[in-house]
Amino acid sequence: MNSSRRVILVTGFEPFAGHVVNPSAEVAKALDGRVVGSAVVRSAVLPVHHAEAIPAVIRLVEESDPLAIVHLGLAGGRARIALERVAVNVMDFETPDNAGHLAQGESCVTGGPAAYLATLPLDAMLAALLAEGVPAYVSNTAGTYLCNLTMYGTLDWLAARNHPARAGFVHLPLSPPMVAASGLDQPSMDVGLMVRGVEIALSVVARTTFPPKEVRP
Amino acid sequence: MNSSRRVILVTGFEPFAGHVVNPSAEVAKALDGRVVGSAVVRSAVLPVHHAEAIPAVIRLVEESDPLAIVHLGLAGGRARIALERVAVNVMDFETPDNAGHLAQGESCVTGGPAAYLATLPLDAMLAALLAEGVPAYVSNTAGTYLCNLTMYGTLDWLAARNHPARAGFVHLPLSPPMVAASGLDQPSMDVGLMVRGVEIALSVVARTTFPPKEVRP
Amino acid sequence: MNSSRRVILVTGFEPFAGHVVNPSAEVAKALDGRVVGSAVVRSAVLPVHHAEAIPAVIRLVEESDPLAIVHLGLAGGRARIALERVAVNVMDFETPDNAGHLAQGESCVTGGPAAYLATLPLDAMLAALLAEGVPAYVSNTAGTYLCNLTMYGTLDWLAARNHPARAGFVHLPLSPPMVAASGLDQPSMDVGLMVRGVEIALSVVARTTFPPKEVRP
Amino acid sequence: MNSSRRVILVTGFEPFAGHVVNPSAEVAKALDGRVVGSAVVRSAVLPVHHAEAIPAVIRLVEESDPLAIVHLGLAGGRARIALERVAVNVMDFETPDNAGHLAQGESCVTGGPAAYLATLPLDAMLAALLAEGVPAYVSNTAGTYLCNLTMYGTLDWLAARNHPARAGFVHLPLSPPMVAASGLDQPSMDVGLMVRGVEIALSVVARTTFPPKEVRP
Repeated sequence: MNSSRRVILVTGFEPFAGHVVNPSAEVAKALDGRVVGSAVVRSAVLPVHHAEAIPAVIRLVEESDPLAIVHLGLAGGRARIALERVAVNVMDFETPDNAGHLAQGESCVTGGPAAYLATLPLDAMLAALLAEGVPAYVSNTAGTYLCNLTMYGTLDWLAARNHPARAGFVHLPLSPPMVAASGLDQPSMDVGLMVRGVEIALSVVARTTFPPKEVRP
Repeated sequence: MNSSRRVILVTGFEPFAGHVVNPSAEVAKALDGRVVGSAVVRSAVLPVHHAEAIPAVIRLVEESDPLAIVHLGLAGGRARIALERVAVNVMDFETPDNAGHLAQGESCVTGGPAAYLATLPLDAMLAALLAEGVPAYVSNTAGTYLCNLTMYGTLDWLAARNHPARAGFVHLPLSPPMVAASGLDQPSMDVGLMVRGVEIALSVVARTTFPPKEVRP
Repeated sequence: MNSSRRVILVTGFEPFAGHVVNPSAEVAKALDGRVVGSAVVRSAVLPVHHAEAIPAVIRLVEESDPLAIVHLGLAGGRARIALERVAVNVMDFETPDNAGHLAQGESCVTGGPAAYLATLPLDAMLAALLAEGVPAYVSNTAGTYLCNLTMYGTLDWLAARNHPARAGFVHLPLSPPMVAASGLDQPSMDVGLMVRGVEIALSVVARTTFPPKEVRP
Repeated sequence: MNSSRRVILVTGFEPFAGHVVNPSAEVAKALDGRVVGSAVVRSAVLPVHHAEAIPAVIRLVEESDPLAIVHLGLAGGRARIALERVAVNVMDFETPDNAGHLAQGESCVTGGPAAYLATLPLDAMLAALLAEGVPAYVSNTAGTYLCNLTMYGTLDWLAARNHPARAGFVHLPLSPPMVAASGLDQPSMDVGLMVRGVEIALSVVARTTFPPKEVRP
């Protein structure tokens, strides 16, 4: 029964920095309710707001008690789906967030560790994506903007609670219409291919993540 | 009736340089028989062979008497559909063609002019592609490999005969599976989007190209 | 004696598009008067002006009766010295010239041929540069801005007069201070290395270019 | 007197991966003995060896008791001097080190924290470099090869001892002869400019780093 399925929480971001869309939100919404292996996707769209993104994640985690958390975000200029390896305790924005805040060398969490490594099975996710013909790689930087903040904040919150959920971040390229509108020489990826790629990645997460032993009477 | 439709000849290339597929051939085949405006597409796949590519084009032109000729080819490393502005009278290969020939500074046509400009409506094609959200641009170099040779050879043959067909070349990015297989950080484009893009471009060609006045009794 | 030396005319461009310097002018000035093989460099700085650049070149050619003409220009974004193979009969500006003109698909010379190929010994110049450790390549597009216009206009003027001078264009990268000031992720090249590179290229031109037979009493 | 000057330890790396030189070693050697502010540079060249690089650093630190440690390394493909912000506890090599070891997802230090942030004054170093016209930026990834390992290992060793030395890593571009020899389209930087840039960065380190209070009789 679906009601017994564990949740994989998938988040995207609202548009920012003058963009009118954000493929990460489109992909997250497209996957809402989708069954992957023994899990079901619950998706949501986060604000591009330095003070509100993490609280929004925490509410979602408390509501859905997910097996795993996969944040999605946009990385203009990247050509492939990027499985992020690490989130660093730094906010250093090149453009203000949607609250108008331009962080300059601040910490994500005051006194927090320098970084957290993703707890998702990155190598297996990468292998599955490449086997299915989806361009992807393991990235060593999630930047120092909202994407990195969200990955850091989620992993920090989970670590503080010894919470068993795995978590990480996946960066997506610009969509073709965004590049067409920009007039710039930048790579893009079809949103349909992004949806397929993220679903492949989630399937690996579902297959390799075993829920904590549950006591059943 | 279809029999009265004028043809737009579309060509792709066979795989080369170790690739096992060539998206330009996939796109050409996908469009074969498609009706665009008052024209119909006839497509074919050309050999990546310095001595056979142009004769193959000439046979196709003589058979189909096209209104316009749109050659397609692969340009690894490019992120957008490239409408080529110019073909130069130079063959300078970085990799041998499928005949094993590595041209080094040869002419495409001995004694031919330095270059030909495409006779397709590039600006209108570009505007239509961007309006439909397809990443594209007008490129100033078709390279010095088979793509440039084919564009040059076609335009030279048409010019020598004062043939009214318009002609030009469109470069396509790598497909996602090609990038996934390569492990390289290179842009790609979904083949479905390429097909849609080329069809949009052909529609502009069909709409703006009027057949030579026909004498009707 | 110096007075009997034949001239190689080297030109750079004034700054444009908001830049406060232009490395092509710095390099041209640095080489003025330098003896390369049996020739001597005479250099000048051209206006970034669609209507004045070519007349300025013609005056310089008429004054100095050069053996060869090597135009230098700036190509932001390029990492290596670019020996241009071809100039096309197109002006299509992305940014206005210093006269405020934004050419859109105009010809350089109305009714002129589609393109001219450089008449400099590009392959030998490239080999000499690489042998000396200077990053360089043969480029297939000089763009559609003032650089291409100047190369086209010079070659067209020479061709119309059956003038024996060889001519071509060399694009230079941004200088390090320009990149530092821009804050952008762009390649640069030390101006000293550019000067050395252009001098190497000019030496090849001097060595391989024989003056028209001179009548000696 | 020099004998009372505190040391800034600067390291480069030996050549690797088929390169015959390594600009980081050239720059380190060029700066050996140079006085920057109240400090003097002591430089050394490290082995590209996963098991020997860190022990070599430790010996150098124990010998020279430095005020600060600035490791230099080569980052092919980068166009600007990169001030590294973070070292992660991951070794994931794309090419074997000089011992033939190809680490795949190993830790730098088993059980160590996910990452360390550089303790150098990166923002002030960057500002000084840009003010002097040297292309530079703060980088968010030092990769997962020997450079990252060395930065991580040094910071881990210092942290374990509560050692007051500041430490960090600076990545340098390829040199022009390396790019010329490769035939690839890659950015480069003159070694002389690298030397000047690193000296500027070291001056900021010297100026902003105060030695632990010394007891004087």
